[in-house]
Amino acid sequence: MANEAIPSFFTMEKFCVHILGCGSAKPTLRHLPTAQIVELHGKYYMIDCGEGVQVTMQRLGLPMHRIGHIFISHNHGDHIFGLPGLIGTMGLLGRTAQLHIHGPEDIRPFLDTILTHYCNGMDYEVVFHPIHTREHNIIFSDRSVSVYSLPLEHRVPCTGFLLREAQSLPHIRREMIEAYDIPVSQINNIKAGASWTTEDGKVLTSEMLTTPAAPARSYAYCSDTTYVPQLAELIDGVNLLYHEATYGDDCAGRARTTLHSTAAQAATIARDAHAGQLVIGHFSARIKDEKPLLEEAKNIFPNTILAREGLNIDIF
Amino acid sequence: MANEAIPSFFTMEKFCVHILGCGSAKPTLRHLPTAQIVELHGKYYMIDCGEGVQVTMQRLGLPMHRIGHIFISHNHGDHIFGLPGLIGTMGLLGRTAQLHIHGPEDIRPFLDTILTHYCNGMDYEVVFHPIHTREHNIIFSDRSVSVYSLPLEHRVPCTGFLLREAQSLPHIRREMIEAYDIPVSQINNIKAGASWTTEDGKVLTSEMLTTPAAPARSYAYCSDTTYVPQLAELIDGVNLLYHEATYGDDCAGRARTTLHSTAAQAATIARDAHAGQLVIGHFSARIKDEKPLLEEAKNIFPNTILAREGLNIDIF
Repeated sequence: MANEAIPSFFTMEKFCVHILGCGSAKPTLRHLPTAQIVELHGKYYMIDCGEGVQVTMQRLGLPMHRIGHIFISHNHGDHIFGLPGLIGTMGLLGRTAQLHIHGPEDIRPFLDTILTHYCNGMDYEVVFHPIHTREHNIIFSDRSVSVYSLPLEHRVPCTGFLLREAQSLPHIRREMIEAYDIPVSQINNIKAGASWTTEDGKVLTSEMLTTPAAPARSYAYCSDTTYVPQLAELIDGVNLLYHEATYGDDCAGRARTTLHSTAAQAATIARDAHAGQLVIGHFSARIKDEKPLLEEAKNIFPNTILAREGLNIDIF
Repeated sequence: MANEAIPSFFTMEKFCVHILGCGSAKPTLRHLPTAQIVELHGKYYMIDCGEGVQVTMQRLGLPMHRIGHIFISHNHGDHIFGLPGLIGTMGLLGRTAQLHIHGPEDIRPFLDTILTHYCNGMDYEVVFHPIHTREHNIIFSDRSVSVYSLPLEHRVPCTGFLLREAQSLPHIRREMIEAYDIPVSQINNIKAGASWTTEDGKVLTSEMLTTPAAPARSYAYCSDTTYVPQLAELIDGVNLLYHEATYGDDCAGRARTTLHSTAAQAATIARDAHAGQLVIGHFSARIKDEKPLLEEAKNIFPNTILAREGLNIDIF
């Protein structure tokens, strides 16, 4: 079967956000502190690490050893107090691969205390990579993804994250390969742009022998932050945006003074960024029902959903 | 109705152990890391503080503000990583009363890091009281209880805790008070041992005017530790003993090398201490069914039960 006949759903690598916790500072019976796993090309990238993540990951069937990088937005307990247990348990599970932790410089003392006092004899290394929270930089990339910092405005230095999937190579047209009897050893070159000249001198360009890959996808995570309009430009065209919506319109003043956002402000960012979808979270413990927040957001950006623990959001 | 007609169950103040977590270092979906609340005379004394306690307390309907003292047995993450979140949330809930944390000296760096970096602006004070883990001392007492350290043997300095209820005053015999027309203002003196002389010179002793209070009760917590036979003498006659039983007989060697105990060893301590009841916990993540451990313990000390999250054990 030619690749072009296969719906892109089946040829696309999984790019999924697993919500482990979407509450705010005070945990409740409705929401856990903030943590997410971004699953991309079989790897896990953790964003924030609230207390209890190691148990939540087990509940959701997400194995810890797949995490290579943890990105911490800011040095507030509800985004970081799951780290000690996670680091320790990874050691008990026999991890040997390095664990990379990216975050603002001010998480270093906490991390140092954990590594000095609770990680003796561990068979793996934890490597800390400080992030400049005032800059929009590339902070990490591998074959699957590039991660950019997004300057946020909160009560302490705070950064969001933009994950841009690496652009896949185009798909080879197998019927052309067979028709022209092109050796398998040439396929990767052709995908990468090389032409193929047949024995009778006909030049087949890469474009003729391939179908375009699906466009690279992207995910932006913005929490915790007050409303920062210039974010929209930095994440323009993002497929999925997670933006904090700690409060509804009824607490807009409180959102301002605590440097948090309302659902409507989250939706405004999504609209102005031409996002594909918005998921709102980081709900205040005061909120007993998030539906009004959802409505307030949908009035501005209709394709909005509510975060909840255990939610998996596929990015297409 | 005279007090002596009321079964002691109704006149006794509640003395109850709430199990919040009874797993060991690696949390599983069956058990959470170690934490307990001892409820006595309306107050909560927390023993150990594994990750996730603040959510478990909410699940079990145990309000945090009742905790005045936290006793930490040793500086391993599965007994202490719930502290940062608990301390922070108490602050967010508007706590003003001091919180006292008792534990071995080596928990201080962790505590200092938390208090320095995550507790600015909190309206309450955390006071640390170091414990000498090699000594059997009284480490705290109030009107309800005296708490003693119990030297344990683990891979780091470690102490158990013996909580002895303060002896209640005897119950007044109301029918005697009425018969001899004794003023209400004298009741506390009589309970405390004073006699009463009637107008015609008859001396009524305290013993004649009261019925004895129920004997003071006690609870001992021994985790983590290898088998320490001399513990039995220190806790002789204890009403309830929680003793770790990380392993069963099939892992006796592993228990020895990791300085943990087997269920049979826990039961031996209970038997030799003439305990009223034994509850075993701190189960290894390897154990998928604790019933064999229960059987091994019961062979030595029949009145044994298994700890589990959410279990409340009343002490009579």
